Amino acid sequence: MTEPARGDRPEERLADPTGEPISWFPVPEPEELPEGLGKLFAKAREQLGFVPNVFRVYSYRPERLSAWFAHYRQLHEPTDNLDAAEREMIAVAVSMANGCLYCLVAHGAALREVLGDPVLADRITLDYRRAGLDERRTALLDYAVKLTEAPLECGAGDIARLQALGLSLEEVWDVAEIAAMYNFTNRLALATGMLPNREYHALAR
Amino acid sequence: MTEPARGDRPEERLADPTGEPISWFPVPEPEELPEGLGKLFAKAREQLGFVPNVFRVYSYRPERLSAWFAHYRQLHEPTDNLDAAEREMIAVAVSMANGCLYCLVAHGAALREVLGDPVLADRITLDYRRAGLDERRTALLDYAVKLTEAPLECGAGDIARLQALGLSLEEVWDVAEIAAMYNFTNRLALATGMLPNREYHALAR
Amino acid sequence: MTEPARGDRPEERLADPTGEPISWFPVPEPEELPEGLGKLFAKAREQLGFVPNVFRVYSYRPERLSAWFAHYRQLHEPTDNLDAAEREMIAVAVSMANGCLYCLVAHGAALREVLGDPVLADRITLDYRRAGLDERRTALLDYAVKLTEAPLECGAGDIARLQALGLSLEEVWDVAEIAAMYNFTNRLALATGMLPNREYHALAR
Amino acid sequence: MTEPARGDRPEERLADPTGEPISWFPVPEPEELPEGLGKLFAKAREQLGFVPNVFRVYSYRPERLSAWFAHYRQLHEPTDNLDAAEREMIAVAVSMANGCLYCLVAHGAALREVLGDPVLADRITLDYRRAGLDERRTALLDYAVKLTEAPLECGAGDIARLQALGLSLEEVWDVAEIAAMYNFTNRLALATGMLPNREYHALAR
Amino acid sequence: MTEPARGDRPEERLADPTGEPISWFPVPEPEELPEGLGKLFAKAREQLGFVPNVFRVYSYRPERLSAWFAHYRQLHEPTDNLDAAEREMIAVAVSMANGCLYCLVAHGAALREVLGDPVLADRITLDYRRAGLDERRTALLDYAVKLTEAPLECGAGDIARLQALGLSLEEVWDVAEIAAMYNFTNRLALATGMLPNREYHALAR
Amino acid sequence: MTEPARGDRPEERLADPTGEPISWFPVPEPEELPEGLGKLFAKAREQLGFVPNVFRVYSYRPERLSAWFAHYRQLHEPTDNLDAAEREMIAVAVSMANGCLYCLVAHGAALREVLGDPVLADRITLDYRRAGLDERRTALLDYAVKLTEAPLECGAGDIARLQALGLSLEEVWDVAEIAAMYNFTNRLALATGMLPNREYHALAR
Repeated sequence: MTEPARGDRPEERLADPTGEPISWFPVPEPEELPEGLGKLFAKAREQLGFVPNVFRVYSYRPERLSAWFAHYRQLHEPTDNLDAAEREMIAVAVSMANGCLYCLVAHGAALREVLGDPVLADRITLDYRRAGLDERRTALLDYAVKLTEAPLECGAGDIARLQALGLSLEEVWDVAEIAAMYNFTNRLALATGMLPNREYHALAR
Repeated sequence: MTEPARGDRPEERLADPTGEPISWFPVPEPEELPEGLGKLFAKAREQLGFVPNVFRVYSYRPERLSAWFAHYRQLHEPTDNLDAAEREMIAVAVSMANGCLYCLVAHGAALREVLGDPVLADRITLDYRRAGLDERRTALLDYAVKLTEAPLECGAGDIARLQALGLSLEEVWDVAEIAAMYNFTNRLALATGMLPNREYHALAR
Repeated sequence: MTEPARGDRPEERLADPTGEPISWFPVPEPEELPEGLGKLFAKAREQLGFVPNVFRVYSYRPERLSAWFAHYRQLHEPTDNLDAAEREMIAVAVSMANGCLYCLVAHGAALREVLGDPVLADRITLDYRRAGLDERRTALLDYAVKLTEAPLECGAGDIARLQALGLSLEEVWDVAEIAAMYNFTNRLALATGMLPNREYHALAR
Repeated sequence: MTEPARGDRPEERLADPTGEPISWFPVPEPEELPEGLGKLFAKAREQLGFVPNVFRVYSYRPERLSAWFAHYRQLHEPTDNLDAAEREMIAVAVSMANGCLYCLVAHGAALREVLGDPVLADRITLDYRRAGLDERRTALLDYAVKLTEAPLECGAGDIARLQALGLSLEEVWDVAEIAAMYNFTNRLALATGMLPNREYHALAR
Repeated sequence: MTEPARGDRPEERLADPTGEPISWFPVPEPEELPEGLGKLFAKAREQLGFVPNVFRVYSYRPERLSAWFAHYRQLHEPTDNLDAAEREMIAVAVSMANGCLYCLVAHGAALREVLGDPVLADRITLDYRRAGLDERRTALLDYAVKLTEAPLECGAGDIARLQALGLSLEEVWDVAEIAAMYNFTNRLALATGMLPNREYHALAR
Repeated sequence: MTEPARGDRPEERLADPTGEPISWFPVPEPEELPEGLGKLFAKAREQLGFVPNVFRVYSYRPERLSAWFAHYRQLHEPTDNLDAAEREMIAVAVSMANGCLYCLVAHGAALREVLGDPVLADRITLDYRRAGLDERRTALLDYAVKLTEAPLECGAGDIARLQALGLSLEEVWDVAEIAAMYNFTNRLALATGMLPNREYHALAR
């Protein structure tokens, strides 16, 4: 776990157990990991058929991964006026604004799955403004992108606007917290050179 | 906890128990909070003399606060080549790049305390480039700001450069993860209109 | 062909013959078009199985479409040191910098086809910097993106660098002209609200 | 036609037949060119008194020049509500946003000629916002610049606004296509280091 | 006064008479200065207890300092609807937009003094948008920042808006001239590596 | 001198004595002005044949004009290694970066005059990077533009580079102070809607 980074050539990216290099940092063998992560990995393998590379890459700092995931998972719990699909839409809109390969591929796949409409999901992922969304969904993605690109300019008026479109105050908070969270994960993925699992590209098409 | 946001006038900001409006979202009474947060608040009151407003404001979503704090606190644990002061420096450099009032005031105070040199701490907070830092500290703050402002352009070469300046790979990861974390907290603070406690301004001067 | 645009709701987008709204401008019936375009459409239908929406949408101005296409098609002719795949890579790298939904989907599909590796093609489309490309390909995409985002800063040194990596002067010119061309098509697609054909999303996976 | 680029010194720019270096790429002798271009050059010499350097420089790729020019010339055909002057105004407004020396000088001269008011033409070229234009002309230049600088934010509402100011839908399309075209030509001129003919500077003053 | 600049290390900054390096340019001894500056320095020492480093650093070009100061001082003269505090607010809002360490520290202290409320002053300095200011003060700071960041977009409408909020035309002019002035001083301070006097940090707390 | 601004239509710009509207603020009659300005105006009329509009417009605040001009004029005094032409080049390079119509026209004319080469002067005004300047002049304009667009990133290394190219330290200071000054005047001209005198356009051609 202590071998050095190897310059700026992607060929030298450090490999995960399947042989594909997925990070500029060392990637631990799953058996080296604490028990809690082992369970997380097993569950992912069961549900998805593979362990998402974000888990493998982030397990270089295993306690961080556990803590982050305990926070992150709460943000994707659906509520009455902000469903699972809309939470994924925020994820992809922020990730497109930041240009994050990992999150665009992984959450693009998740959005295809939850929407059951791969074309619509791809359109939202790449440009939610031209994807045919209604005013409410457009407004919440506009706010997520504003918080990403011009956070200083966000004000109480933005909160009021989303309330007027039917979100509860807790749900407006969620839009902000999810957008903020993907500003974290996008940067961690970009900083580590994280590559998405090959399986994601064909999922739910 | 369900009263509406009240437009864009700061006078209408929702008040905390001490009477100062500190958020555009409702701020719960401490006694309404889950036990775990009560302990966190008590500990803060004991150590700092007051409860940081980030705790009060974030307690509108109490489980989120608990989860976030469990992650966040890990990132400020000092290591051999990345001490407590340097971790605070990353916090303020990112917060200045994003213009985050709450984090500049709260972590500016923390940096004054940990450095024991209020003038140097203020200089680093407002412009680390002209604060007289050595090459190593300048480089790690440059990287944190690059990851904030141009994350796509970060590469394996940035990692190698910090290693060459004496950081372990785990510590390079920490620079990235701390920078990414303040891109989360800055946006949450800006989105909620969070105001720093008045006490911070005079701390450690 | 003279009905008015209908406000900002995507539902009101004007429909193409298959029923899907694909432009904010009127979309002519194919039978209304000049003979030359009819042949172009027929050839596309034969080769791809459908008429790309850029043809349908642009046929609102049929002579423009003919003239543009006569220019555009020259730019994708492969040469010794700048093959068909690399020309498509320039298309997607510029389109990602501009955020152009139509071109990302249509040329992302073309890149999957010409590379025969859908995962690699998607990676290049979304972030060529982390896609594992060699120095030469990375350099030509860097130049295309520089010409997109900071054209004033492009100089004779950029030309010399690509020559040193093996491109002929004619091919360096091509990199510039293709990048410039996608700065045209991206803007025309974004201005017209052009949507990519649904068929592209599943092509060559 | 195969000599190498010569580094980043403007003195080393490659010369055109009149002795002035006008491109970072080789500039063919007119007699080497295909017949069609010869006619184009002759016509320009007859009308303007000289061959515009864009023709000389672009003739390094003669078939491209022919194809591009066949497209480009269509865009400057005046219509009822978008006259020749207004089409030149779009050219200069986009070129100022991109900082393109060649197009500012060449189309600045063309605008002086078509307006017959050199002071007004120069003002529009350098800052159309302070040039005293009416609402309609200001709006169409605002749209052209928006499509240049923030194309993602262009929507159906922009189309409707120009229609409300008297443009037909075809003419709104033209505003977009001309703006997109100068995003092509500006980048080609900047990438090649193209210099405007000395004659332009004094034309129509 | 002719020794060379010494590279990019802050440790090598040139020292002022008190021993602290405060500029990347030579700093003259006060006794070397023309008589007029001697009086200016004496007056500052009397009023503030020290000579602001901007005087020491700028005295490298003593006639410039005299001329600039004769202009600058006029801009801080209070008027009926634009008082001393508001003029300092413009100074800090522009300085925060430009990230100018010297001006943030020196004018932050001046604002604390004139407001008599150090917490409010710090909040305005770091983020006037979240500092609880009324509509009029927010509007004049918005205009000052717009003139800093997007001067081309400033128009007659901005002037009318401030008049409607109670400023005279002369006072609207002052907002613009003060904002423009800090775009001068911020850049001179940043270009010279000017450091604020240590005394400012604790003033008026 | 107290009539109100009249909305956002350029037609309503306030007129100068010659009948051309040249400012969004009132323009005093020359006979109303203090004696010192009368002399300044007379001298300009004698030397140039007309009073520059910056004097007329700025005379709305006559003491400011006097003070500013006393500072400004010092900056255009030539020295051994930074001659009059180079000082004008800094003026136009900064004005192009800011897009300032008034300064581009007025200082573009001044540069044509001092260089005696109108084509070269126009090229430098619109794009100094492609104007054929030598390394030294390119470097000082690069620094002036860097201080305009990214002042935080300017460091002691920039000073050293210009020294290495033959400038004295005082002259490096001048480059910075001139660049900073045009960041003042550009913003004042843009904020007031200042229009250049019609005479400038044909001067020195």
